[in-house]
Amino acid sequence: MKFDILEFDQQSSARAGTIATDHGKIQTPIFMPVGTVASVKGVHQTELKNDINADIILGNTYHLYLRPKTEILEKAGGLHKFINWDRPMLTDSGGYQVYSLSGRRKINEEGVNFKSHIDGSSHFFSPEFSMEIQRKIGADIIMAFDECTPYPCDYSYAKNSMHMTHRWLNRCVEYLNENREIYNYNQSFFPIVQGSTYKDLRKESAEYIASIGAVGNAIGGLSVGEPAEEMYATTEIVCNILPKDKPRYLMGVGTPINILENIALGVDMFDCVMPTRNARNGMLFTAHGTINIKNKKWEDDFSPIDEMAITYVDTYYSKAYLKHLFAAKEYLGKQIATIHNLGFYLWLVREARNHILAGDFIQWKNKMVKQMDKRL
Amino acid sequence: MKFDILEFDQQSSARAGTIATDHGKIQTPIFMPVGTVASVKGVHQTELKNDINADIILGNTYHLYLRPKTEILEKAGGLHKFINWDRPMLTDSGGYQVYSLSGRRKINEEGVNFKSHIDGSSHFFSPEFSMEIQRKIGADIIMAFDECTPYPCDYSYAKNSMHMTHRWLNRCVEYLNENREIYNYNQSFFPIVQGSTYKDLRKESAEYIASIGAVGNAIGGLSVGEPAEEMYATTEIVCNILPKDKPRYLMGVGTPINILENIALGVDMFDCVMPTRNARNGMLFTAHGTINIKNKKWEDDFSPIDEMAITYVDTYYSKAYLKHLFAAKEYLGKQIATIHNLGFYLWLVREARNHILAGDFIQWKNKMVKQMDKRL
Repeated sequence: MKFDILEFDQQSSARAGTIATDHGKIQTPIFMPVGTVASVKGVHQTELKNDINADIILGNTYHLYLRPKTEILEKAGGLHKFINWDRPMLTDSGGYQVYSLSGRRKINEEGVNFKSHIDGSSHFFSPEFSMEIQRKIGADIIMAFDECTPYPCDYSYAKNSMHMTHRWLNRCVEYLNENREIYNYNQSFFPIVQGSTYKDLRKESAEYIASIGAVGNAIGGLSVGEPAEEMYATTEIVCNILPKDKPRYLMGVGTPINILENIALGVDMFDCVMPTRNARNGMLFTAHGTINIKNKKWEDDFSPIDEMAITYVDTYYSKAYLKHLFAAKEYLGKQIATIHNLGFYLWLVREARNHILAGDFIQWKNKMVKQMDKRL
Repeated sequence: MKFDILEFDQQSSARAGTIATDHGKIQTPIFMPVGTVASVKGVHQTELKNDINADIILGNTYHLYLRPKTEILEKAGGLHKFINWDRPMLTDSGGYQVYSLSGRRKINEEGVNFKSHIDGSSHFFSPEFSMEIQRKIGADIIMAFDECTPYPCDYSYAKNSMHMTHRWLNRCVEYLNENREIYNYNQSFFPIVQGSTYKDLRKESAEYIASIGAVGNAIGGLSVGEPAEEMYATTEIVCNILPKDKPRYLMGVGTPINILENIALGVDMFDCVMPTRNARNGMLFTAHGTINIKNKKWEDDFSPIDEMAITYVDTYYSKAYLKHLFAAKEYLGKQIATIHNLGFYLWLVREARNHILAGDFIQWKNKMVKQMDKRL
């Protein structure tokens, strides 16, 4: 994996770059649509490429391990081949999903025992096992097995958890040093900074993560309920410590505004279920604010979904039609809204990149943040 | 509306023709995908045009009347504009859906009182009102308001019902003579033959319908549970009476085999929820038989969904991937299966047409009927 920074913004920590992987290039800043169980819900792979223009998509190790199961993915020759996606992919470590199974999992130094949300069967994830599964899934970027602390989280828990995450990181690295990729392309490993919202812990964690010398680094444990200001303050501390010449990935973030603010702080990569999940609930993101398409006021508004026409659905279908599809519980509504929202998120990061390259990122960002903070 | 027959098959009653409407041409024999509530479930209009190659789609008056409501469709300028579909459309009369509301509707000479399946509200459909709604929906082909009898149906009920259907037909015709289209294109009206599976009733009904001199005619009340042989026997009687130079539409039929057999008997148009509904349940139709994609045996079969590659999904995705999507309840599975099945149905009627034109329809039909009668 190779990361080239084409431009550093002069008024902020934003950067425009390119990550080269064996499955092609990723232009940063980038947003990665989430394809939890080997599918971005309701969207064809061809639409992700041709309409949404996604450079990279994300898969969830926990879900893929349970279904279709690691063995099937290995037989298929990896997730890329299984779903027929020839661009880059990233997998999380399974940690976040496992911790979300509250009451159904037990954490100890060795790893995490948990019960499947599908059939209640018992399973065990360790740092080594997460690496093994991720090697078999075969994403271009694979993530360290960490503990994601909740918000709020008391100081001593956050500190102990962070140290365990660091010990687990060492085990991941050791496993990967002894076990090479099983497919004919490179898989890059990103460690993850934790430490909740405690500045000293984040500083310590970022320094430890930086010392690993990985090709890219991630910030975990944010977008878990903390106020946006705490998120930005934490990102800022961490980005100032993580190496400037390596991509920085802020996990699970966020709203369009969160994304622009974090780009300004030096983040290069994002993922979040918000554009897809909210789409399925009838919430559309636009450059001028959000739309609840289920609202009665759209029922005879025959104007295009979004005059900006970022994707073809924006002008192919009207607000009234989309409102009807949601009212009638027709799945096409969710499909259209998902294409719209992902198209918008991808447009947003591409525009951010263009403005970083053009040197007017902060002015544009401030205008957009104001403009998007509305309900239409 | 203009119907040109390009070729009559020499060994059967099959014909290859073209129906010209103000929204373009329909090549017959044709299959019409069902878009019940202003959407073919899980399929974009662009996919219907570009991937499935549908010449015409069907809307259901009962469903559209309830949602989005006739008023909204009229404000939109008709259903074509509402859903952005510029090719031909057909609407049923609402009769079939209303009768399906067993225990929730009462029929008398005037029309049908029924309660909405959505909110239990009371409504009344008469022949005149069905015509009025269909004018406002604005399909290119609109259907008479008839009673569809169940199977089995006792003789006297079938006879009385058929006579009421004929009286209702007169009221439809009278209404349409006095009320012109409200949009700037022609709407063609098809009357419907009823009479259950009684030969004398079907004969009487077909003669009455033929006497109307409509631009096209339909056969209703079949595919309601009768054995295939009774369906074919009924179609044969009716087709021998309905005018040869007008399109014949067999409503609600059927399996791929039903379609080929009825083409041989002189039917030009078909619609059925089978390819779409069965797709959503994981059943795929192919030229070599049906596939239950939920079957465990496909879980590591990485071969294309269908080597015939009629639509792009057939080779873009594998059986193992599609099986996984169904197992994981990912909606993309239903989307893929629906595109496959509709693509196959449209391929089947296009091939039938090509073989009628080439003069070897019956040989091809017999081979296909045998070949498709399998479970893979």
